[in-house]
Amino acid sequence: MRKRKPFRKGQKTAHSGVQREHSGAGGLWLYGLHAVAAALANPRRKVLRVVVTPRAAEELGDSVHRFHPELAEMDAISRLLPTGSVHQGAAVLSENLPKLDLDEVLASPNEGRRIVVVLDQLTDPHNVGAILRSCAAFEVAAVVVQDRHAPPESGVLAKAASGALDRVPYVEVVNIARALEDLGRMGFWRIALAADGEMNLREAAPLSDIVLVLGAEGAGIRKLVRERCDSSARIPISNAMESLNVSNAAAIALYEMRRD
Amino acid sequence: MRKRKPFRKGQKTAHSGVQREHSGAGGLWLYGLHAVAAALANPRRKVLRVVVTPRAAEELGDSVHRFHPELAEMDAISRLLPTGSVHQGAAVLSENLPKLDLDEVLASPNEGRRIVVVLDQLTDPHNVGAILRSCAAFEVAAVVVQDRHAPPESGVLAKAASGALDRVPYVEVVNIARALEDLGRMGFWRIALAADGEMNLREAAPLSDIVLVLGAEGAGIRKLVRERCDSSARIPISNAMESLNVSNAAAIALYEMRRD
Repeated sequence: MRKRKPFRKGQKTAHSGVQREHSGAGGLWLYGLHAVAAALANPRRKVLRVVVTPRAAEELGDSVHRFHPELAEMDAISRLLPTGSVHQGAAVLSENLPKLDLDEVLASPNEGRRIVVVLDQLTDPHNVGAILRSCAAFEVAAVVVQDRHAPPESGVLAKAASGALDRVPYVEVVNIARALEDLGRMGFWRIALAADGEMNLREAAPLSDIVLVLGAEGAGIRKLVRERCDSSARIPISNAMESLNVSNAAAIALYEMRRD
Repeated sequence: MRKRKPFRKGQKTAHSGVQREHSGAGGLWLYGLHAVAAALANPRRKVLRVVVTPRAAEELGDSVHRFHPELAEMDAISRLLPTGSVHQGAAVLSENLPKLDLDEVLASPNEGRRIVVVLDQLTDPHNVGAILRSCAAFEVAAVVVQDRHAPPESGVLAKAASGALDRVPYVEVVNIARALEDLGRMGFWRIALAADGEMNLREAAPLSDIVLVLGAEGAGIRKLVRERCDSSARIPISNAMESLNVSNAAAIALYEMRRD
């Protein structure tokens, strides 16, 4: 991150006076330099408090001052967060992001092929966070999850996403199968990624807009969801292994689709 | 996993009598169906105890009976393991694997291009486990780590590796830079994977044997290690993101190298 000029003297510090605030109505602590930088840069994110070490404030650059940050020691920030959170000296209390509508997200203009990633009941926030990170890296237009079977917006998810939670539209829908029907009507080619996929990944994707559907580790993609797909694809791997980690499989599939 | 015939009647059960055993001299609990199946199938793994539910015993198949498994309930198995371990009804107490020598591992005959993965001070067992899993899936000849800066063989590592810890040679060396010099002498082309790599990944790999070097998240590859590489490669991603999760980057690189 960019360097900024030294921290302004006389600024209020809170070395011992940082108050713990339970994340009640809509309050959500995000932490880690990348996650905090992305949260502050996201105009849709309502920031309530910013607590940083002087060093983290420098790393975050001038923009952090718009949010009147409280300066604190590493220990004091640790006490605001769940035990063991790797916060790197930066934490933000914010409201949850406003809910997004898939139609509106996809209505905005785009260049080149659009990719939408659909997660069918993946619940591990580390995996979903890593997938969001890869989705931002490969310019995915939206990540679609089922509202009642997805990890909620959380510090763990945002940290694993390394800023991507505030960059990639994360759309919660009531019904995944219905969302796939809608995407089909919008002209997307829907591919189920599965170990028993009928085609090799590199042959499965036409040049049109694409939906990539991923299932949970173990359970896989549910039957009624897979039935809404136009084809299924597999990543060729050794017979010795049944499958890849789901975030690794997602990364490979996105790489292949962006690999002209 | 393959189904087996119903569990033999009269076999000793231990529904309430499972004793907790602290992993003392070389004792190591592995858990999860894939990790346990691979441990039992690995002739180099000395198994001390096998504790399974009747259902997991069925999943594991006939081979489990050679190890005189103790039958137990899910709860009893949970009490043998660290809190929160997702064991799926299967746990094995074993000795640590015997140490491997890189020369010996690479002396065994091989077909086609060999790939060795070198992890420079990666310590997160989830990431290293997921990388091992991808290494097994893409038929990597060996994973090399620095003995004092790598996650030890553990239940968490083995679970994340989903059986790969018992399939891919995991070689601990004292000095990564020296191991790279040795690999160079053996004819391997050494590629550092880095966000600022000089070449696009797909152009970086010749058809010879390859070493892929990965650095820790944040710190990256140490200078003295990178200096031992023949070239550096990057995965092309959006400017909006600094990097991918390291296990996702590893998966993409291995996929690209096996993608004829």
